[in-house]
Amino acid sequence: MKSIAETTDTALGEEFARVRGQSEDLCRPLSPEDMMVQSCSDASPAKWHLAHTTWFFETFILREFLPGYVEFDPDYLWLFNSYYNAVSRQPEKKLRSGFSRPSAGTIFAYRKHVEDEIQRLIESNLGDEAARRIILGLHHEQQHQELLATDIKNALWSNPLQPCYLEDDFSRSATAAPATWIDYEGGLREIGFAGDGFAFDSEMPRHPEHLRPFRLASRPVTCAEYLEFIEDGGYRKPELWLSAGWQSTQDEGWQAPLYWSNQDGQWSIYTVRGEVPLTDLLETPVCHVSFFEADAFARWAGKSLPLEAEWEVAAQPLPVKGNLLESGLLHPQACPGPAPGEPAQMYGDVWEWTQSPFVGYPGFRAVAGALGEYNGKFMSGQMVLRGGSVATPASHIRPSYRNFFPPATRWQFSGIRLAER
Amino acid sequence: MKSIAETTDTALGEEFARVRGQSEDLCRPLSPEDMMVQSCSDASPAKWHLAHTTWFFETFILREFLPGYVEFDPDYLWLFNSYYNAVSRQPEKKLRSGFSRPSAGTIFAYRKHVEDEIQRLIESNLGDEAARRIILGLHHEQQHQELLATDIKNALWSNPLQPCYLEDDFSRSATAAPATWIDYEGGLREIGFAGDGFAFDSEMPRHPEHLRPFRLASRPVTCAEYLEFIEDGGYRKPELWLSAGWQSTQDEGWQAPLYWSNQDGQWSIYTVRGEVPLTDLLETPVCHVSFFEADAFARWAGKSLPLEAEWEVAAQPLPVKGNLLESGLLHPQACPGPAPGEPAQMYGDVWEWTQSPFVGYPGFRAVAGALGEYNGKFMSGQMVLRGGSVATPASHIRPSYRNFFPPATRWQFSGIRLAER
Amino acid sequence: MKSIAETTDTALGEEFARVRGQSEDLCRPLSPEDMMVQSCSDASPAKWHLAHTTWFFETFILREFLPGYVEFDPDYLWLFNSYYNAVSRQPEKKLRSGFSRPSAGTIFAYRKHVEDEIQRLIESNLGDEAARRIILGLHHEQQHQELLATDIKNALWSNPLQPCYLEDDFSRSATAAPATWIDYEGGLREIGFAGDGFAFDSEMPRHPEHLRPFRLASRPVTCAEYLEFIEDGGYRKPELWLSAGWQSTQDEGWQAPLYWSNQDGQWSIYTVRGEVPLTDLLETPVCHVSFFEADAFARWAGKSLPLEAEWEVAAQPLPVKGNLLESGLLHPQACPGPAPGEPAQMYGDVWEWTQSPFVGYPGFRAVAGALGEYNGKFMSGQMVLRGGSVATPASHIRPSYRNFFPPATRWQFSGIRLAER
Amino acid sequence: MKSIAETTDTALGEEFARVRGQSEDLCRPLSPEDMMVQSCSDASPAKWHLAHTTWFFETFILREFLPGYVEFDPDYLWLFNSYYNAVSRQPEKKLRSGFSRPSAGTIFAYRKHVEDEIQRLIESNLGDEAARRIILGLHHEQQHQELLATDIKNALWSNPLQPCYLEDDFSRSATAAPATWIDYEGGLREIGFAGDGFAFDSEMPRHPEHLRPFRLASRPVTCAEYLEFIEDGGYRKPELWLSAGWQSTQDEGWQAPLYWSNQDGQWSIYTVRGEVPLTDLLETPVCHVSFFEADAFARWAGKSLPLEAEWEVAAQPLPVKGNLLESGLLHPQACPGPAPGEPAQMYGDVWEWTQSPFVGYPGFRAVAGALGEYNGKFMSGQMVLRGGSVATPASHIRPSYRNFFPPATRWQFSGIRLAER
Repeated sequence: MKSIAETTDTALGEEFARVRGQSEDLCRPLSPEDMMVQSCSDASPAKWHLAHTTWFFETFILREFLPGYVEFDPDYLWLFNSYYNAVSRQPEKKLRSGFSRPSAGTIFAYRKHVEDEIQRLIESNLGDEAARRIILGLHHEQQHQELLATDIKNALWSNPLQPCYLEDDFSRSATAAPATWIDYEGGLREIGFAGDGFAFDSEMPRHPEHLRPFRLASRPVTCAEYLEFIEDGGYRKPELWLSAGWQSTQDEGWQAPLYWSNQDGQWSIYTVRGEVPLTDLLETPVCHVSFFEADAFARWAGKSLPLEAEWEVAAQPLPVKGNLLESGLLHPQACPGPAPGEPAQMYGDVWEWTQSPFVGYPGFRAVAGALGEYNGKFMSGQMVLRGGSVATPASHIRPSYRNFFPPATRWQFSGIRLAER
Repeated sequence: MKSIAETTDTALGEEFARVRGQSEDLCRPLSPEDMMVQSCSDASPAKWHLAHTTWFFETFILREFLPGYVEFDPDYLWLFNSYYNAVSRQPEKKLRSGFSRPSAGTIFAYRKHVEDEIQRLIESNLGDEAARRIILGLHHEQQHQELLATDIKNALWSNPLQPCYLEDDFSRSATAAPATWIDYEGGLREIGFAGDGFAFDSEMPRHPEHLRPFRLASRPVTCAEYLEFIEDGGYRKPELWLSAGWQSTQDEGWQAPLYWSNQDGQWSIYTVRGEVPLTDLLETPVCHVSFFEADAFARWAGKSLPLEAEWEVAAQPLPVKGNLLESGLLHPQACPGPAPGEPAQMYGDVWEWTQSPFVGYPGFRAVAGALGEYNGKFMSGQMVLRGGSVATPASHIRPSYRNFFPPATRWQFSGIRLAER
Repeated sequence: MKSIAETTDTALGEEFARVRGQSEDLCRPLSPEDMMVQSCSDASPAKWHLAHTTWFFETFILREFLPGYVEFDPDYLWLFNSYYNAVSRQPEKKLRSGFSRPSAGTIFAYRKHVEDEIQRLIESNLGDEAARRIILGLHHEQQHQELLATDIKNALWSNPLQPCYLEDDFSRSATAAPATWIDYEGGLREIGFAGDGFAFDSEMPRHPEHLRPFRLASRPVTCAEYLEFIEDGGYRKPELWLSAGWQSTQDEGWQAPLYWSNQDGQWSIYTVRGEVPLTDLLETPVCHVSFFEADAFARWAGKSLPLEAEWEVAAQPLPVKGNLLESGLLHPQACPGPAPGEPAQMYGDVWEWTQSPFVGYPGFRAVAGALGEYNGKFMSGQMVLRGGSVATPASHIRPSYRNFFPPATRWQFSGIRLAER
Repeated sequence: MKSIAETTDTALGEEFARVRGQSEDLCRPLSPEDMMVQSCSDASPAKWHLAHTTWFFETFILREFLPGYVEFDPDYLWLFNSYYNAVSRQPEKKLRSGFSRPSAGTIFAYRKHVEDEIQRLIESNLGDEAARRIILGLHHEQQHQELLATDIKNALWSNPLQPCYLEDDFSRSATAAPATWIDYEGGLREIGFAGDGFAFDSEMPRHPEHLRPFRLASRPVTCAEYLEFIEDGGYRKPELWLSAGWQSTQDEGWQAPLYWSNQDGQWSIYTVRGEVPLTDLLETPVCHVSFFEADAFARWAGKSLPLEAEWEVAAQPLPVKGNLLESGLLHPQACPGPAPGEPAQMYGDVWEWTQSPFVGYPGFRAVAGALGEYNGKFMSGQMVLRGGSVATPASHIRPSYRNFFPPATRWQFSGIRLAER
């Protein structure tokens, strides 16, 4: 897949239409009522995602770059602002579940209005900054596509009837290739983005880091392997946990990953296709674990989690392909036989928790203005994840991509790859 | 209006259809998305009310009295149970905002299914207990109609856009008749229900209470009168408040009734027809005050609130009519000139807080079985309100009717009538 | 024992010295460190009780009635104010555990200073109002003596070492007399205080209440009887509980009264003399139960709790004596054989929960000024208890005495007497 | 001052006595009641610190290395355990304020008992591991000396009377030397501990880090400079703050550093010598700021905070001396003229927040066994501080020393040194 940023203006218009369409595709199995649900404080209603991503194009591109642009509705400026203090005040996040008005139909009309105007802008004399902003807006939209997928899953699961999101068939019988270790040299290695295409400010500047020699597991940890940890009492042994992680297990009553449940000794997992016996998913990568669980599992296994620099060094030579959003599977798959000497499933399937806190790279500067609130202000208390998941659009991910979440987060498709050094 | 319980079977079928239709009428201005919103912990989504009232008929009547009854959906037995532990487990109340499935359309189909079967039961050889249960179910439905009105108002108000529920015109110019005092003798007086028609268990048995001579105000307190209390610093003087009430003002930041707001010194009130300047509503009864506010106002005025027995003694000779749900106004009205020597607006407009805690009358016995959970288990920490409001169906209210809410409750149409003794 | 209020001035000085000494006697087994502990939000440190009761005499008597009175320390005016908004601001209750300064020694000096000045006032030309205030201050001190006893018990119990407060021996072998029923006529009965001695404003005015015929149990419920309730699953059956009570059991994890614990199937009870096997206490009245537990027990037993008017009618002819603070036992005792036709243990042993909310009697008026904050402002959300406990001074209790606590309160010596009507 | 670890056995005994004595010296101005206060969830009572540091020697040294050791009290094993799950269960931290027993006197006896036995062990055939553990125990004790100082300050401040801890005079008139910039080269630089003496596991292994060229301010930020930030609206501008930091300002109502207060426009600061006008302290380093405030100040100033590696590189050539615990000042001092080209006040005065999260160095391994719980399990959600403060014993600090606290922490003597790169 071609990088968005390499596109000509014509191609940009096409890419714009394609990415925007992908958001609506994700909502196709949903009713307007489904699109209202906000099932946890991490999540937002699907309708809100559709509106907010549109707000982004309206606020940062049309208002600034399209002369005479007429807003769809002036209230939307503040109504669908998420957290950009420099733009306007914002409604409290928890109020989003009450946005019955504007209706889903109105939001689709809002999308169309903004899309038409963006296309008009693209067809006009589009300057560099406007083009850059559109591309940023598409990446922003793709991030919300990932959230759409995870928030919808959580919303349906929180319904006591636990309905399915997808009804199609899903093969679960594969066997995962055995895990092996891939060795990497240490020394001064360059990481961070430095190319021509698009990257977030937080991926830059490219810079050297000094690494020890290290090894990465050839594939993510499977449910079967994680079950051993559970059955060995992993959730009952404080010595395996960071202090804050142990506190989370106690406060939240964690005894297994999110979406696992146990009835009369039989484990099953809620997926976007409904409840599935664990026995059918043993060989798939374990998913919906927090950093704390990933870290405890690694300690139990006598290993550790990768540093983000280690992960990136290993990923640099690999092609960006895998079980990503476009596969339509929305669930990780058992690892096929890995190419000798090369780690498998680095992209897609599950985000891989690293042991690196999300901080600015040496020399990091946030973008000036409201868009500077995009990444920099979250550089506190969050951990880096790498590689994308089943909910990540293929054109959104790259070796230098840094995702980040607080260490107790579980509703993302997040898993574990072991390392040692 | 004829009492429901006096009806023949044919009349019962008609009454059933009429009351059930009233619930759907209340939802007519709403979209399925509007019917999802649960804007505070007191409230439920409109769709849930529509389903739960139907569940009541299915659970307590059709399952028990209609041989061979086939459920619309067996999961609904527990899904739409509110708090009847003897029937089944129940989903946590806060989860109701996530019930995107079943859809509003399905719930309307559920209603139709149950209504058809109830009519079939009525047309069959309907026994006394089944008839009593249907009548109970209709009163239950009417209670939820009141909640529908208050929950919808709160839901739309919690939307930052604050849309209107009704678009019709509403005259606000009337002047309230001046308040005077009506005198009542004390001594041993009978209260409680003893007639042939319907009443809740909590209204019985009829029994004597010994009262001091007392006086009641001829009409409820108006917004203008309440504004004096505010402007005199009523919300800043702890000596006017019960200790728990003062705590509520501090915890919740109360400075005026719910739905009042102040912009640059100008008060306005959110109504079901949107924001209205206070100046247009000064003569209407103050509304959406808690017991704590009613009690503090009374202390500030050098008066007190009525005992429920006092209120009932005064109400016994009066006709049950007033500004009730059927007026379609959904907002209290300025008091017309009262008949000499008779209190006005006793029924309708606003529920009147009494200073009586909700406890069982001497000899009270809860109904046996699950229906015994209806009233008795709430006899702790709640205060009695009397007389109905703009959201109360006319056939639902009577002199002995006891409504009850915790003393900090404000989202109901609750107001103040002064007393002294 | 002679009523305080009947005393001459000489007798008043003696009574003052006696009551004040009783507070210090309660603290004799404590170190200054023990007197710092505040182990739950209901409780205060013992040192604070010693200071606050002294503050009461200084604030309401010496400052007002002793010309030229020089304060021990002017900061104490606000530092030891509990909740009298009309006097001054107050430190938050939870800060009391941080009052290492003033030291216990200083507080004892403060007590002596104020006591000397009160005696000087008594010896001078003492007016009626000052005398009334001193008597009120002594009753206030006695209320805090009860709190001293219960707060100290809780403080020591909250220490993981669970030390004893008393080391003396305590006979536990008695057998309780069997419970029988005493019958009372209904009709219009007078309750409330009307004599010459001291009573709180909340006990007045004396007034008629109309009662049904009723029966009271001849003695409080024993631990053995309460154990049957536990073993029958009383704490697991929501149908036995008020809704708010069931919520408390869930939120607090109640499975037995406060201070009961179960190790390997064996119950024991923490007392002021340390942990005692339940088998030694089976015949003693159950204690440290909330209103919710008392109410659930009564429902389980097919009975109910007394109304406060019923209790008072039954208590009026009885002498005020029993296992009160002066016995030094600080734990309830097995019921001796009751006199035929007369209820036993009405005074002392355990406070008896009634099913009457604490509200003002008809015609109740709070005292004017700051002292009006004493009772009236707590008339919301609390239930009446009657009869005193092992922690109540004998001269403090009477038939009309109304104690009150929120329905989930358990740290007082509160028990259960059954009624039926 | 000689490093503890270089001592011979005789010297070890002397050092042991000296360090232990320093803890008791800190408590000399306190009464047993003062030593009970636990004024915030971060803090512990002084008595608990005295007991817990003793517990450390008893648990990790005497029990393991002194044959036939008889415990002072076997309950202390779990009673004074802080968080070592591998040793025993622990009482909840908040219960420590209830430990009136054992008394302060008993704790001093406990200290003496353990000290005598440690000296006996030292005089016997002391092995290497036992010696290492004693030295660890002394560093552990020194950490608690710092906490003693900060917890006592907070305890007395939380008393509404705000008593002083020290009564001596404290000169405040000095003028701080102007801030200049010191330049450092970038490249691969070694940090971490590698010598012979004592260091915590978290300071190792020594390893290379690749740094950009950078500059450090020649002294910490003063109160005068911080006041400019406040007066420029620093606490009201979300764009200056990390998202989590802004949330903290809103949740906690921060408007200035901890211990600052403003009465009628005049700022003053609570110190261990009581309230001091800000005008007397303007030239002293600002203190008791959180990481979030330090970070916001740096952003406002157009600078940033140092990385911990930058700080350590700059500190390596400097002598370890400054305004540390032994000065007895317990408050930071205005910066004397710095030596040209060398940063001042790197050690002592205030801990300096870095922008480095506290994580393990490459190759970090926690010590095996219970002592491995010392540092490693806290490597989540905390930020590194460097250089020690007025509450740090001189023999406790070194260039590689890593202190760590959550980013909202303010009760430590924590300040700001600016950096740029």
